[in-house]
Amino acid sequence: MSIEQRNIAHEFDGDQLESVLVTDGTGQALPGVILIPSVMGITDLEIGWARDLAGRGYNVLVVDMFGKQFRGAARDVMFGEMGRVGKDRANLRDRLLSMLELARGQSEVDSTQIAVMGFCFGGKCALDLARTGEDIAGVASFHGLFDPPGLPANKISAKVVCYHGWDDPMVTPDAVVALAKELTEAGADWQIHAYGHTGHGFTNPNATAQIGIPGVEYQAAAARRSFAALYDFLGELFA
Amino acid sequence: MSIEQRNIAHEFDGDQLESVLVTDGTGQALPGVILIPSVMGITDLEIGWARDLAGRGYNVLVVDMFGKQFRGAARDVMFGEMGRVGKDRANLRDRLLSMLELARGQSEVDSTQIAVMGFCFGGKCALDLARTGEDIAGVASFHGLFDPPGLPANKISAKVVCYHGWDDPMVTPDAVVALAKELTEAGADWQIHAYGHTGHGFTNPNATAQIGIPGVEYQAAAARRSFAALYDFLGELFA
Repeated sequence: MSIEQRNIAHEFDGDQLESVLVTDGTGQALPGVILIPSVMGITDLEIGWARDLAGRGYNVLVVDMFGKQFRGAARDVMFGEMGRVGKDRANLRDRLLSMLELARGQSEVDSTQIAVMGFCFGGKCALDLARTGEDIAGVASFHGLFDPPGLPANKISAKVVCYHGWDDPMVTPDAVVALAKELTEAGADWQIHAYGHTGHGFTNPNATAQIGIPGVEYQAAAARRSFAALYDFLGELFA
Repeated sequence: MSIEQRNIAHEFDGDQLESVLVTDGTGQALPGVILIPSVMGITDLEIGWARDLAGRGYNVLVVDMFGKQFRGAARDVMFGEMGRVGKDRANLRDRLLSMLELARGQSEVDSTQIAVMGFCFGGKCALDLARTGEDIAGVASFHGLFDPPGLPANKISAKVVCYHGWDDPMVTPDAVVALAKELTEAGADWQIHAYGHTGHGFTNPNATAQIGIPGVEYQAAAARRSFAALYDFLGELFA
């Protein structure tokens, strides 16, 4: 096995996108994971996680939500992009469904065995994909935003797990209780793993005091625990 | 390795107790786990879990909280015993501290590496041991009760994890939020894993509709997930 990656050009709503498929190099159709990055888009961090997962038996599509010209763009630019892409939740849903179709169309992905994971804004996107009611095996949100899309509710068939920092200033305890209610009413098989003394962005080793966003900080224990839980979750989905 | 078990007679407050030590049979001092049963006291279920853990490198003391004459007693008797033993939380704390001393005194237990796990009432007891501030590596509560003891608060040095059924009628979302606040203020390294569509007693395969307590029911997925998380937790504590 030698991990391979290739860029995939695609388009949504006039945006020229470039996602990255990371595989185990065998060409075999394996369970697939759609990995949705944070507001910062695709970085080495997401590619590293995808390579790790490809070594564990999953082929991973790291999706470009914003446009290929934004790879490596500055934070303020990316926050603007997040606003543009995310403000209309129905349009965001359609963008996400196009990512699901893209993943299903890859020969290295078993289209009947797909999970979705996402970070921060990408965690919200992962939840929004679950909310579509699409036939997805499971969805994992890492420090994702829980605000509901305000669209007609569907029965959620995906298993859902959220890894959540309890001190996340963007996701209060009230929002956690509200998500639990929403997921219960949607019939989802759900879990929320809450971590104390943990804020937003806890999986990102680059999230230090230097980036200057209060409440956003790497937390090594929560990062390790959430990934250990993810491996267990994927194992359960694709046993 | 051949799993062995022996009864240990001890006493607290006039109660004649008989706990069970389950070891890997080598006589070696290993990390120790204090396992506190539910209201029903020591049953084959707890012994089975202890034997499983002994096969994973932990020697386990399954503690008798009520008195050896109550092994196998009827549910109404045991609820009475729970009331007797639990009504004075300072006395309960002292009873639990005597269990900790008992574990520390066993030659098969490394007294510097002790974790505590408990189920239902035993989960509350496990949390109460964390609340003492004692030097315990970690505490795991399975569908435990979260009501605080109303005793002076201590800094909690144990890592704490709670596996919690969100629909548990004895532990409402408000109680979850309150526990998060309490553990945060006590400085604990804490996690709460919440499971949707899951009630009280979810690890107990005997918790069926037949026992006739609404909201108490075995849930296979949550049982598997919580034990997988426990193994990861113990691995983290005693790596």
